[in-house]
Amino acid sequence: MTLEGKLLIGQQAIKGKQIEIRAINPATDETLTPAYLGAGKEEVDQACALAEAAYGTYRETSKEDRAMFLETIASEIEAIGDDLIERGMAETGLPRARLEGERGRTCGQLRLFASVVRAGEWLDVRIDPALPERQPMPRVDLRQRHIALGPVAVFGASNFPLAFSVAGGDTASALAAGCPVVVKGHSAHPGTSELVGRAIQRAVAKCELPEGVFSLLFGSGNEIGQALVADPRIQAVGFTGSRRGGTALMQTAQSRPQPIPVYAEMSSINPVFLLPEALKAHGQALAEGFVASLTMGAGQFCTNPGLLIGLAGPELEAFVDAAGEAVKDSSAQTMLTPGIHAAYQDGVGMLSAHDKVRQIARGLSVDGPHKCRAALFVTRGADFLADEALQAEVFGASALVVECADSEELRRVADQLEGQLTATLQMDDGDQALARQLLPTLERKAGRILANGWPTGVEVCHAMVHGGPYPATSDSRTTSVGSAAIQRFLRPVCYQNLPERLLPEALKDGNPLTVSRLVDGKREK
Amino acid sequence: MTLEGKLLIGQQAIKGKQIEIRAINPATDETLTPAYLGAGKEEVDQACALAEAAYGTYRETSKEDRAMFLETIASEIEAIGDDLIERGMAETGLPRARLEGERGRTCGQLRLFASVVRAGEWLDVRIDPALPERQPMPRVDLRQRHIALGPVAVFGASNFPLAFSVAGGDTASALAAGCPVVVKGHSAHPGTSELVGRAIQRAVAKCELPEGVFSLLFGSGNEIGQALVADPRIQAVGFTGSRRGGTALMQTAQSRPQPIPVYAEMSSINPVFLLPEALKAHGQALAEGFVASLTMGAGQFCTNPGLLIGLAGPELEAFVDAAGEAVKDSSAQTMLTPGIHAAYQDGVGMLSAHDKVRQIARGLSVDGPHKCRAALFVTRGADFLADEALQAEVFGASALVVECADSEELRRVADQLEGQLTATLQMDDGDQALARQLLPTLERKAGRILANGWPTGVEVCHAMVHGGPYPATSDSRTTSVGSAAIQRFLRPVCYQNLPERLLPEALKDGNPLTVSRLVDGKREK
Repeated sequence: MTLEGKLLIGQQAIKGKQIEIRAINPATDETLTPAYLGAGKEEVDQACALAEAAYGTYRETSKEDRAMFLETIASEIEAIGDDLIERGMAETGLPRARLEGERGRTCGQLRLFASVVRAGEWLDVRIDPALPERQPMPRVDLRQRHIALGPVAVFGASNFPLAFSVAGGDTASALAAGCPVVVKGHSAHPGTSELVGRAIQRAVAKCELPEGVFSLLFGSGNEIGQALVADPRIQAVGFTGSRRGGTALMQTAQSRPQPIPVYAEMSSINPVFLLPEALKAHGQALAEGFVASLTMGAGQFCTNPGLLIGLAGPELEAFVDAAGEAVKDSSAQTMLTPGIHAAYQDGVGMLSAHDKVRQIARGLSVDGPHKCRAALFVTRGADFLADEALQAEVFGASALVVECADSEELRRVADQLEGQLTATLQMDDGDQALARQLLPTLERKAGRILANGWPTGVEVCHAMVHGGPYPATSDSRTTSVGSAAIQRFLRPVCYQNLPERLLPEALKDGNPLTVSRLVDGKREK
Repeated sequence: MTLEGKLLIGQQAIKGKQIEIRAINPATDETLTPAYLGAGKEEVDQACALAEAAYGTYRETSKEDRAMFLETIASEIEAIGDDLIERGMAETGLPRARLEGERGRTCGQLRLFASVVRAGEWLDVRIDPALPERQPMPRVDLRQRHIALGPVAVFGASNFPLAFSVAGGDTASALAAGCPVVVKGHSAHPGTSELVGRAIQRAVAKCELPEGVFSLLFGSGNEIGQALVADPRIQAVGFTGSRRGGTALMQTAQSRPQPIPVYAEMSSINPVFLLPEALKAHGQALAEGFVASLTMGAGQFCTNPGLLIGLAGPELEAFVDAAGEAVKDSSAQTMLTPGIHAAYQDGVGMLSAHDKVRQIARGLSVDGPHKCRAALFVTRGADFLADEALQAEVFGASALVVECADSEELRRVADQLEGQLTATLQMDDGDQALARQLLPTLERKAGRILANGWPTGVEVCHAMVHGGPYPATSDSRTTSVGSAAIQRFLRPVCYQNLPERLLPEALKDGNPLTVSRLVDGKREK
């Protein structure tokens, strides 16, 4: 398939007029064609106007039509074939297997949301029938359903060019909720974005939906993203990226005449607690598992284990030694972008130069640009507690081990953590008492708590929470992965005494959509 | 019961040290005793420290214990007896029947939340069991429940001294969710607040809960409220009041190092569409019903019908004439506070002086301070569309009728409305086509849509939405009335492969709490 370097606005492909973006192959530093000229205010306006025009029809599509649309997007992405994988590899430096897996995840995610749309739990139907005889006052008939918020702006992330990008989780969940989507594609992978964007365009046409259901814009710098979030037709924002980028969008969204919700996933160091009995019983295996998780994808996962916390002593020392050996043997991997690599070098440099931090190991050095050499550091609990900067995320395969003097200090470290996507307990049977003490703290700090696993690997399912307290995300009340993400883009509407003929299908007597309903506060069987 | 004029911090009653607040009887302008010395930063800090200390225990109370606590609060409020009604009447000028009804509503609301806690839908339990044989990768065991956000700040509203105040909907739903509450009592009814606050204190003691579950502060000006919202231990805010007050709290909450959600219910003019066939068939009855709703409680309901929209013509004229007659016959009622009365006078004065607005009628004039004389105005659709100021809320019994040239203009008026708590269709069978055209717009504008009723009267039930798009509220995704309000104060946490013994009760195998669960995406029977 030939890339045209164009913006996709509704069913059109339009040449931008602003500064050009060109993908760089981070493995070779080669600049890729075509150039993507950025969108300006005019194109933002066009995309938002189309989204607004599509919203009325799209949000009232039947469950089946909307589910079919999501499934058609998945099929169209698969139909691109190997061109998508090859372009993805060229733009990100990610290996083939990773991108093939990510494509499977992306399409599986779209199909999961199709099943979620069909099941209809998201409608949250509640019916309180009229009670005309009630004393002292009769009760009116009240029925509630959820509707789509309106057009949604989605920002593609750099680290998952498929699963968190143009047709990623934010787009899938917003489309599932009935919201048109305007994507701001990530500048690191415009070609991959165009391919996926055209797949969605084709799905929109095949399903005979209004063209404004989907648009894809590019633009360098922050201007175009800010303009998109400021547009009065946009009603919610999905973002995955840096804390700086996320908080800037939060500010823009809050200073609009009508503030809107921003779902920004930002930063997390994903603490792992190495409890004493687990360390004693299988420290070597833990060290190997840890380094495998740390170095996966050059450490560029939001859930990368960047912080390990244990009790000082021979077992922790043995763990650090073993992990250090594994880090030393780890191959350097190409990072996603020159910018990410530069930030990684800065972060690792800061830790290396820190007078309270010891460097234990660095990974193998390899020729080639933008390579991530894994890094392992150690500090003491007291020093960690004394310096907030040691909690800063180093995006990449760098981790800091915190040696605590005793379990009291370990609990203080837990208590002082910022909000996280995940927190992990490596534990054995004998660690249950300490684990039980830590759990209430970890519940306040993280969206997901793991036992005896590693946080990388985020299952797309119903019970997943990929979220957590600020600054892990801007809104701890939701998840960006899994079926509950659909709730981000919905709001409740109540209908009082509306004639049956005017009621939405979901609320009609006899439950024609056969959805789960709360009737008079009781879950209907 | 003797009022002491004190702040209630945990189980203590403490004299404040800041500027004093004294309630005024708006019916007589008499200053009431005792004086309430305001809280300072020190007392805010104490209340928040106790709330934080209570949070860990309180959020994990059993469903039954928490439900019993809510029911005990209701019983303790009832046990105050007539002292509560009399003090409420003196502080607000509201008639006895209204306050007795409001007490019933407040206690009923607490008991509804007790039943909601017991039912356990709020836990939103989701279980995706492990699939060890799945290819290409096994699935881990993932389980989700919701937990309380943390300590919540609640601001009492002036217009419902019981139902939206110290033990009102925000407090009831936050306590139901497992959040300790720090209330900033409204300065207009400190004595009523103290009585209710002491009832909650007694319930905390009887139920042997940690004292920090509840505190009650007073303070003049905005300083104490801002300090409360800025306190790092506070994790969410409930507010009912003016748009200015609500947006100030939103700004404070957003500029904290850790931003937190604010649920502010602010302003709404509750448009009522008088569709032609309904107007033709029973214009007189509509006029009477309208004025009864308009003047109820001196118009001081958030859902007061402040805007009527119809097609110009003899039927609308007859309606306006009849409504005007009813307004002229309406007695003036004492408003809640001198401040509300002054703002009402300003708002009515602005409309009277507006060169595109005709005054149709004013209510009867009566001696006595702070009386609300109802007011009815008319303007043309084109003029309404041309001047945003005509959408400003006039809190009190003032309404504006908009005469539209045709149904196209009527739809444009609907389209240009700001966010609202409610929108109403007065319709007959022959109006269904027009109603159907309007509904999609009204769904975007309002949280609740009524047919052939009046928006005052907000049922406390499961399907209610008392909310709506900005500026009606700060967050259209929730409701402040009804059982779904519990969701405001919760967030999801996911547990991955946690040993059964460490899992929260709600997530254990065998469903020991017998709650509704989503297992593998399917609602369990």
